[in-house]
Amino acid sequence: MEKYNYKLLIAYDGTHYSGWQIQPNAISIQSKILKAIRTLLKYDVALIGSGRTDQGVHALGQVANFTCNDEIDIRRFLASLNGLLPKDIRIKSMEGVPLDFHSQYSALSKTYHYFLNPETIINPFRRLYAWHLHEKIDIPLMRLAAAEFLGTHDFTSVANEAGCGSASRDPIRTVKRLDIIAEPTELRLEFEADGFLYKMVRNIVGTLVEVASGKKRVSDIQRIILAKDRRQAGRAAPPHGLFLIDVNYSIPFSGIASKEGK
Amino acid sequence: MEKYNYKLLIAYDGTHYSGWQIQPNAISIQSKILKAIRTLLKYDVALIGSGRTDQGVHALGQVANFTCNDEIDIRRFLASLNGLLPKDIRIKSMEGVPLDFHSQYSALSKTYHYFLNPETIINPFRRLYAWHLHEKIDIPLMRLAAAEFLGTHDFTSVANEAGCGSASRDPIRTVKRLDIIAEPTELRLEFEADGFLYKMVRNIVGTLVEVASGKKRVSDIQRIILAKDRRQAGRAAPPHGLFLIDVNYSIPFSGIASKEGK
Repeated sequence: MEKYNYKLLIAYDGTHYSGWQIQPNAISIQSKILKAIRTLLKYDVALIGSGRTDQGVHALGQVANFTCNDEIDIRRFLASLNGLLPKDIRIKSMEGVPLDFHSQYSALSKTYHYFLNPETIINPFRRLYAWHLHEKIDIPLMRLAAAEFLGTHDFTSVANEAGCGSASRDPIRTVKRLDIIAEPTELRLEFEADGFLYKMVRNIVGTLVEVASGKKRVSDIQRIILAKDRRQAGRAAPPHGLFLIDVNYSIPFSGIASKEGK
Repeated sequence: MEKYNYKLLIAYDGTHYSGWQIQPNAISIQSKILKAIRTLLKYDVALIGSGRTDQGVHALGQVANFTCNDEIDIRRFLASLNGLLPKDIRIKSMEGVPLDFHSQYSALSKTYHYFLNPETIINPFRRLYAWHLHEKIDIPLMRLAAAEFLGTHDFTSVANEAGCGSASRDPIRTVKRLDIIAEPTELRLEFEADGFLYKMVRNIVGTLVEVASGKKRVSDIQRIILAKDRRQAGRAAPPHGLFLIDVNYSIPFSGIASKEGK
């Protein structure tokens, strides 16, 4: 049995990857990190991520963990890992955690940000990191629509099928926060929930943009959620505006305490 | 003789280009814009830039102009131009200017910014837009060294040969401003001068970093400038941290007034 468990905090520019998760015939972020870890350890391990991110989605605070038989000199390992990885993937930090820490199951909540760019002519430096909108956006209307998604709901209407091999999950989630921050040239939509269904953030963003541009009404949102039908909601926002910002665990983390608490 | 002169304000991510200027067997920003203009006008014109930017250098405010025989519907032309251009090149605005306006010769001064990133582990979203420094940087020391470059000097020691086909230029320039702004995770070096010699900003940045990391002394700067010898200064900073921010013309621009004023 493995004796050590290490947690990685990871940032990546998702532009050139097929997404977080290892897939056949595609270059994933998980496969790049796993390959580097195996090179350093000289044996195979499993790398558990907090969850998938899709092709083109970015991360400033993805979390993953792996268990192994040997105690690692963290400072040296971290430097070597970043040395082996491409520059669009960076391990920001690494720490030893209790053996029962699991990046996915131990997570209490996650934070995603989505960037909308309503400039007539988009800044070329934002082209890969924000959704360039051509519609006129009514921000107060978007805030009213966003409030409808707050709280505990069955989010089936804004969830896509996760595809082959994925177990169907409980569609009940609690959105704790959905703030719309107006920056000088962009809108930043900040989502925090106890968990997100597949494409949930992008489907909510797409629906909010339809309300804010007059294609749907605020009063439609409640009906859409209650319908539990993906076809009722708006189209998914494109992946490149989405950032996984943070995965929250109990602080200080104790795997045992967290398990008992559930 | 041409009857109309149009000025373009241009932003580009220089990562995937050989630089501003048209070169054989290379993809330049100038060639991309020129090709789009020719497609729309259906005849050839000359596109005059305010100056070159090297491979990997970025711009938020490059200026270029072209003259033609036909009056252009600016709003439509601008939208079509951006439609034809790749998304890493954007024409931010277009305006009619007097016939004697010349993007290079009418310029009164230029502003460049250079970004230094001294984080231990660089944010992957900054990898193409800031120089990642591994040395410890002494900011007050860098400010003292920067002050030595202010004012009117012969800048031969921080100028590279511009290469084939370029006329040797007067090496006297006036640096009006060289501010070092400390942002939370980066340093932004703001340069304003009446003109810059080839690689002058990058050579000054390289020299400042050598002072700030203890490889050179503040008192070396004056000696380096007076030597008029490129080998005395530090190595050029890499291109990807450099942004052409602004080209300044007399405001409101009048080509005639500007000419008479000189």
